Amino acid sequence: MKSPTRLADLITALRTLPGIGPKSAQRMAYHLLQRDRKGAAKLGAAIDRALTELMHCELCNDFSETPICPVCASNERDTSQLAVVEMPTDLLMMEHTQNYHGLYFVLMGRLSPLDGIGPREIHLDRLIQRASNGVVQEVILATNFTMEGEATAHAITELLHARGIAVSRIARGIPVGGELEHIDSGTLAQALTDRRRYDSK
Amino acid sequence: MKSPTRLADLITALRTLPGIGPKSAQRMAYHLLQRDRKGAAKLGAAIDRALTELMHCELCNDFSETPICPVCASNERDTSQLAVVEMPTDLLMMEHTQNYHGLYFVLMGRLSPLDGIGPREIHLDRLIQRASNGVVQEVILATNFTMEGEATAHAITELLHARGIAVSRIARGIPVGGELEHIDSGTLAQALTDRRRYDSK
Ligand SMILES: [Zn+2]
Ligand SMILES: [Zn+2]
Repeated sequence: MKSPTRLADLITALRTLPGIGPKSAQRMAYHLLQRDRKGAAKLGAAIDRALTELMHCELCNDFSETPICPVCASNERDTSQLAVVEMPTDLLMMEHTQNYHGLYFVLMGRLSPLDGIGPREIHLDRLIQRASNGVVQEVILATNFTMEGEATAHAITELLHARGIAVSRIARGIPVGGELEHIDSGTLAQALTDRRRYDSK
Repeated sequence: MKSPTRLADLITALRTLPGIGPKSAQRMAYHLLQRDRKGAAKLGAAIDRALTELMHCELCNDFSETPICPVCASNERDTSQLAVVEMPTDLLMMEHTQNYHGLYFVLMGRLSPLDGIGPREIHLDRLIQRASNGVVQEVILATNFTMEGEATAHAITELLHARGIAVSRIARGIPVGGELEHIDSGTLAQALTDRRRYDSK
């Protein structure tokens, strides 16, 4: 006595989702079949369409529905600046600041040797090529300030410096509205080190 | 500047899964598109096939690929006993005991008025009809010993008793291998109340 094949297949397939174990997959399968068949049909269709219609922008590597994404295709961007971010969401966060008008390169990950994610998996060869086009004057590293994000920034810096390309890193410090009392000491130490001198008038 | 439509659609669709918020849905979408496209294709196909090929057994209401499921179609089951369980997994657990040879009725839920799940949603009309076929001699309530499972058992008992059908409830007590020290007091109290007298020889 076991589950019908189609049910077992669905449960197995749901387990390919990150962070979903056997119990969750089972609960999801019941939910889809029992309580939300419309949602299930939409999910199936959304997966199929995403797989067939989404590609990576040839220039910035972000997800795109066209070979060159709208940002890269725009003629209102500062082509001398190239910001390197880990994920598409990070690019969206940068855009939300409305304070950056350059172009992007999306790594689609960060160096993580233990997970088998090396320079090749985050497309560093394409980044180097992109940054070496003679137009880009500065590569701005906007990877996360996690251990992996920092290691990634470091590796990219070495590669770009070897090719004489200017590299900068977004600043680390106290968040706007942050109270020293609630900031971890590492961040505070960095904020001290990176302090900006106010010129006397 | 926003995500490509197909990506946004996929993230929205993933949020129909129970317990999946916007951040998880985003992470899942990236994973499927970036790291496991084969798994994504399988998931899409599994959803479609489950939706089209799975139905509910006309007799026991379990998921089935045929109008009557293999358990109900078997002629090796005791047709005088009908166990009522909440979910298909509970049926599988009962089967694993190899100690039950009757038939089943799967509610596909439990009474939960706050979630809009009433007698109709758990198919109590079909259960009554099924139990009233003149062959079933005993309905064994094997719903969970949660508040909702108990309320469901209580409601079914009332309905069946009104029709003169015998009802029993699986026993509550100390699990096999359970140590009193680690059992909650409610369970221990119930185990005391439900104690079985050993007949003197
Ligand atoms: Zn692009
Ligand atoms: Zn059946």
